[in-house]
Amino acid sequence: MLTTELSEADVSALRVNKERLAKDLHHSCQWGYGIRWGDGSTDTGMQRLALSEEDKSVRDWFIQTMKDLKCQITVDEMGNIFAVRPGKRTDVPATFIGSHLDTQPTGGRYDGILGVLSGVEALKRMDEMGLETEGGVGVVNWTNEEGARFPVSMIASGVWAECIPLAKAHDLKEVPTVASLPTAASAPETMKSALQKIDYLGSVPCSYKATPMAAHFELHIEQGPHLVSAGQRVGVVTAVQAYRWYRLNVIGRDTHTGTTAFEHRADALYAFSCMMVRAREVAKSRGCLASVGIIEAKPGSVNTVPGTVSFSLDIRGPETELVAEVEKELRKDFDAIAAEEGAGIGKPCRVEWTLDFDSPAVKFHEDCISCVQDSAHAVVADAPVADTKSLVRPIMSGAGHDSVFTSKRVPTSMIFVPCKDGLSHHPEEFCSANDCATGASVILQAVVRYDRKRFT
Amino acid sequence: MLTTELSEADVSALRVNKERLAKDLHHSCQWGYGIRWGDGSTDTGMQRLALSEEDKSVRDWFIQTMKDLKCQITVDEMGNIFAVRPGKRTDVPATFIGSHLDTQPTGGRYDGILGVLSGVEALKRMDEMGLETEGGVGVVNWTNEEGARFPVSMIASGVWAECIPLAKAHDLKEVPTVASLPTAASAPETMKSALQKIDYLGSVPCSYKATPMAAHFELHIEQGPHLVSAGQRVGVVTAVQAYRWYRLNVIGRDTHTGTTAFEHRADALYAFSCMMVRAREVAKSRGCLASVGIIEAKPGSVNTVPGTVSFSLDIRGPETELVAEVEKELRKDFDAIAAEEGAGIGKPCRVEWTLDFDSPAVKFHEDCISCVQDSAHAVVADAPVADTKSLVRPIMSGAGHDSVFTSKRVPTSMIFVPCKDGLSHHPEEFCSANDCATGASVILQAVVRYDRKRFT
Repeated sequence: MLTTELSEADVSALRVNKERLAKDLHHSCQWGYGIRWGDGSTDTGMQRLALSEEDKSVRDWFIQTMKDLKCQITVDEMGNIFAVRPGKRTDVPATFIGSHLDTQPTGGRYDGILGVLSGVEALKRMDEMGLETEGGVGVVNWTNEEGARFPVSMIASGVWAECIPLAKAHDLKEVPTVASLPTAASAPETMKSALQKIDYLGSVPCSYKATPMAAHFELHIEQGPHLVSAGQRVGVVTAVQAYRWYRLNVIGRDTHTGTTAFEHRADALYAFSCMMVRAREVAKSRGCLASVGIIEAKPGSVNTVPGTVSFSLDIRGPETELVAEVEKELRKDFDAIAAEEGAGIGKPCRVEWTLDFDSPAVKFHEDCISCVQDSAHAVVADAPVADTKSLVRPIMSGAGHDSVFTSKRVPTSMIFVPCKDGLSHHPEEFCSANDCATGASVILQAVVRYDRKRFT
Repeated sequence: MLTTELSEADVSALRVNKERLAKDLHHSCQWGYGIRWGDGSTDTGMQRLALSEEDKSVRDWFIQTMKDLKCQITVDEMGNIFAVRPGKRTDVPATFIGSHLDTQPTGGRYDGILGVLSGVEALKRMDEMGLETEGGVGVVNWTNEEGARFPVSMIASGVWAECIPLAKAHDLKEVPTVASLPTAASAPETMKSALQKIDYLGSVPCSYKATPMAAHFELHIEQGPHLVSAGQRVGVVTAVQAYRWYRLNVIGRDTHTGTTAFEHRADALYAFSCMMVRAREVAKSRGCLASVGIIEAKPGSVNTVPGTVSFSLDIRGPETELVAEVEKELRKDFDAIAAEEGAGIGKPCRVEWTLDFDSPAVKFHEDCISCVQDSAHAVVADAPVADTKSLVRPIMSGAGHDSVFTSKRVPTSMIFVPCKDGLSHHPEEFCSANDCATGASVILQAVVRYDRKRFT
């Protein structure tokens, strides 16, 4: 049976196997399971940092699983794994389902993992149906999407899109606080060395030219409260908000906590505290977000006022310009805060900014969005409500995803499913087996619809 | 020549050898020299953490130097080193000069070091003069005064005074941020294990009963701006301000930085920032100090809102009651801040306090204070000013010192000399060779005066 020979009704009837998807997903979570939060066998979070030993194990399992489905495997210089189920035509690039298998240090079982596993399940379903596609269908596992161990998120899809130079990515060092986890080496390691260590430094160039795609679809938990609080089942992702990641240093002066009056201090940590309070005020006033995830104060002694504080700053907003405005205002305000702290001794604090990552707002591709929307409407059509279309809504993504980078080179869109309390990056992150299967069925149909669109 | 046979004028004429003191002091700083800040050979800070390899080297040098001066050496169970130059009478405890050879991770060359080296120089001076004392005169190097590596300051004099249990001190673990320095082991080490590793776990009980003292005198840089800004040369320390050290945990919830609106966050780092700003306000309003030296935010990822923040809090004030009042107010305010952050999701942050160290305000002993005051007036008497007594002032110590604990068991007082900009716990901490010698001459005379006072 060939996709282009199916009827519209045939396509709309396509569903994944819910039980098999759940089983495979939790099977893959045996590598790097994290903090336990409940009594059930799957009631743990995940701690599977990119390129850790646990990541190697799940990668090995992924490749073996895809080989069993007769896929062709490609590993590129960033350790991205592309598994392609060949189609009828061998002269065209495959349509991909992709996401990532790495997690936050205190992450959950769905962020990224559901995206890859939905691809595995989609291919298993096609295989057992004997469904042939015109172009191939692939599943891709992108390396270090989280940016938790190596502090640039989506770095490997960024290199693939030729938006980030390979050398920069290879030389990137792991975050010391995360490096102190038992899974990592004692001294900060580069990405290239970590790739070599687990034997995932492939020889194929990491580029959309070497490993082309027809399109990229990604299924993800929403990581926000909109779907779950409205009782909706599928989000058709039309765009991704803009964000920028910075590293800041505040430089003051180390002094004794017991003998230095406040007016004689240039306390870098006090200045930081004022900055963080201000960052929320400014971001809020423009409908944006500002967050600090990493902080280090030196020298780090109870009775020494810290002379140096380094921290990460993550600014997000619905429009690229809004993020730029928040940055501009904070640069001014942080300078003012720094100038005041230490003014009494004529040695005020100062602030240094480094922009690590800049992801402008993204609009996804109309063709992909319509495939997702049609599929979503078809999948929820049997729901016991009057207006099933109300269970589907267009939505903007607050988080970055590998789809941000693929969208720069190939038609791309995403599918969101609800997660409990809108919570993610937390061990208790949860998406029900029903919602996982709904999302996977949508992506299965979307890929089939896209294949039909390409070749009819 | 015996101290009790000297005339008052003989005592007032006693001076140390300025050049030798400076030479010995900087010689001892070859072990653990730190950050360079100038071109001169001694223009570096110090990084000599307690019980590090560098600390072992300077201890070995100290013992050899004191043995060459025919001192008897005792090392106790906390690694405190007591070197005693015997007096005429063998049935009485010695009068001690003491301080510490350990430093902050980014410390200078004078804090503690000057106190021990002034004792070395005083004994060298007595030796070359052939001056015999009635009771013995000792020099003591107290272990881990800074509390930088093992986070209880003055812990070893505290055990000696039987104010801190030996087992608690032996089991104390090093601070992880400091432990990550190259001098320390990769996993946090206990004090006992660190003592064993450098072979300074002595067999003599650490107690004022096993190693008694007649009195304890300590010379220290002021670590504050009063002497230097008034152009004064000696501070006669009459008291030490109260302080308390706490460890606090703020527990919120890890969530995604990109998808979690401010009102859905329980951001432990944001709550911390508000607390730090508030701590300064409250402390200032009561003439006290509040400082945070150590902070750790977990999980420590750019795009995860930290769900846990741990930090140190150091509250100081001139009276014990004032410190207690600041604590009381901050407990209330921190609870209110925590309750607000996360209220929107019904999961507010919460705060946990642990009191690590409580040092009530101390008044030094009249006999020791008067010996120091008489000596200070004598040493500055040849200064080219009309009223030389104006170069000496009574002063309160803002910092804790080992003298806080010795004062609980034996007559004690301290001498302050000015330091540049009032700066300490910083590589550029500086005390001129003249000021060092002034202080050392005062302590030499004070010990002689105390010896005479005891036996006439």
